[in-house]
Amino acid sequence: MSDARDTSATGFSDMITVSVDAMGGDQGPAAVIDGCALSLAKNPQLHILLHGDEAVLAPLVARKPGLAKRLTLQHSPDTVKMDDKPAQVMRHGRGTSMWNALGAQRKGDAQATVSCGNTGALMAVSMLQLRKLPGVHRPAIACLWPSRGKTGFNTMLDVGADVRADEESLLQYAMMGAAYYRNAFNMPRPRVGLLNVGTEDHKGRAEIKEAALLIAQAAQIGQFEFVGFVEGSDIPSERVDVIVTDGFTGNVALKTGEGTARLISDLLRRELTATPWAKIAGLLALRPMRRAKKRTDPSRVNGGVFLGLNGTVVKSHGSADATGVSSAIKLAFTLARSGFQERMSDRLSAVMESVSGRQDTNTESAGGTE
Amino acid sequence: MSDARDTSATGFSDMITVSVDAMGGDQGPAAVIDGCALSLAKNPQLHILLHGDEAVLAPLVARKPGLAKRLTLQHSPDTVKMDDKPAQVMRHGRGTSMWNALGAQRKGDAQATVSCGNTGALMAVSMLQLRKLPGVHRPAIACLWPSRGKTGFNTMLDVGADVRADEESLLQYAMMGAAYYRNAFNMPRPRVGLLNVGTEDHKGRAEIKEAALLIAQAAQIGQFEFVGFVEGSDIPSERVDVIVTDGFTGNVALKTGEGTARLISDLLRRELTATPWAKIAGLLALRPMRRAKKRTDPSRVNGGVFLGLNGTVVKSHGSADATGVSSAIKLAFTLARSGFQERMSDRLSAVMESVSGRQDTNTESAGGTE
Repeated sequence: MSDARDTSATGFSDMITVSVDAMGGDQGPAAVIDGCALSLAKNPQLHILLHGDEAVLAPLVARKPGLAKRLTLQHSPDTVKMDDKPAQVMRHGRGTSMWNALGAQRKGDAQATVSCGNTGALMAVSMLQLRKLPGVHRPAIACLWPSRGKTGFNTMLDVGADVRADEESLLQYAMMGAAYYRNAFNMPRPRVGLLNVGTEDHKGRAEIKEAALLIAQAAQIGQFEFVGFVEGSDIPSERVDVIVTDGFTGNVALKTGEGTARLISDLLRRELTATPWAKIAGLLALRPMRRAKKRTDPSRVNGGVFLGLNGTVVKSHGSADATGVSSAIKLAFTLARSGFQERMSDRLSAVMESVSGRQDTNTESAGGTE
Repeated sequence: MSDARDTSATGFSDMITVSVDAMGGDQGPAAVIDGCALSLAKNPQLHILLHGDEAVLAPLVARKPGLAKRLTLQHSPDTVKMDDKPAQVMRHGRGTSMWNALGAQRKGDAQATVSCGNTGALMAVSMLQLRKLPGVHRPAIACLWPSRGKTGFNTMLDVGADVRADEESLLQYAMMGAAYYRNAFNMPRPRVGLLNVGTEDHKGRAEIKEAALLIAQAAQIGQFEFVGFVEGSDIPSERVDVIVTDGFTGNVALKTGEGTARLISDLLRRELTATPWAKIAGLLALRPMRRAKKRTDPSRVNGGVFLGLNGTVVKSHGSADATGVSSAIKLAFTLARSGFQERMSDRLSAVMESVSGRQDTNTESAGGTE
């Protein structure tokens, strides 16, 4: 744990290396390199391995004084494109910056990876290179959500790794989401809620009712509090820290929230420029409105974390600017340093054993627990 | 159609009677009666049948001059409560204002019903009293959503009638949603989109890919344009008028949108009252901000319409104020006057016949089409 370390030391032992895929984002590699520079400037214990086309990257790195000392450039001839299909990238992805960024982590040269590229391909190559944690059915993608809570953020998972989730997957999401939130925000006992269409016990789909029972039983081992069912309106609320759902519903909810925020922001802008009087009011209100907007700024909450792999992978938003990339690198650094993966894996194994034991009893199977 | 009518006449033939359940809303019957008064004042062709406890309602009605002439009070001794289970209300709901409001419509005394009560119970009693349209698998609830489009609103369905939907149900939602949108907003050829986690053909669940094929084939009979897959961020966009999804996803999306809007509004209010300077700016910006807020005001978009029944039922939000109740009554009036149910039913039958014909061909069944 970081508390036990000598944090004043600057020796290699305290350094965390983050592997960064510089290609594939909508804003191009310049934004990624600006983000690396921002993040490195704030954090002396961070080192970066930057993957991509050297001919493009080297001049961009050279432009920033001192950057070349904090960052190692590794050439990759190819790039995964946004419309490449995951299966295709798994077969033919060698030589791409995404492949090599994850490869460096697999070899132990980096403790986490960040990419702005194609989400499906990143998940596929991550599973191939890092492998799933023992006992994990499917990895999940966890996003951060601006909230009324103490930390200012809630997390929701899965937001798109898998379009379906049975009760055991939902249980694993609860365990993994709680571990992630605890380590990202230093909250010893996060509150976990299961997304449903109502908070009454009789509502929702069968697998969700079943998952509620499993999650309630796992709360002690998982070191979280289970608050039961939550609704869409609770996602940004202070009732809950971790919202568990399947990847279809989570992805729709995430994008609906983003779309709603953008609509409101556009309407406000339109009204505050409609008349000369409104323009003056708008100018005066600019600062407080910016502060409010900052609370819900996508670049501050940037970073979808892949959970359930042997290692930390952060998917930065495709359209992330330098601030967004820097947030994603910071998140990868924090999680890699916490070493939470191992503890999470142990707890997950304990819970899944008790679930499989329970099922064996239920079905009166002759076999023992695994 | 209303164009063919003599709209200057005030004779009984042009009148539309809306049956209103005055009980069961969070704001109590006074808000419902205020909403009735607002709606009646704006619309000379509207008559209201008001159901509820006469001892409570009569004094409230008497307080408003002239209201008693435009509204008929019908006593119901009981009220459906928000936590009553639908099955319970179906068995023991006789004598409640909800039951009687729908009963009046069934008997032909009213052409539409409005209630602020328990959604599940309202759907259950609506199905019992009005019955489903021929060929409809499950009725759906359609909500309105503030949008960037020409009319200012998109519609989404299902938002909570059924937590699952197969491809045929999704097809029926597309048909019903298009018919509703056409008649509520006088748009001859609405654009229909199917909610998914991406717009590429290979993404999403199997039943959604299957539904996309069925909806594309039904576009001509259904008189809509099918725009293909849309994402959560498209729900308030100008790309689409009607968003089709299952009731679980739709309900989560609706509540996520509401929760996001509320969070942003709260953050803005907090920032615009934080310092004396911000307060001045806030006061000056009040009008344009109110105009922007009005565009996304839940009471303006109030009214979940039940589609797929023999008759129009509008579920007003439980917490609707007088403006909200008035919007819901206006919507019920507009839809009842358009007589769209019958045309929708004919088109639905034609499409479902072609679907069942297609399946018979596919499975090489010996039987003919229904």
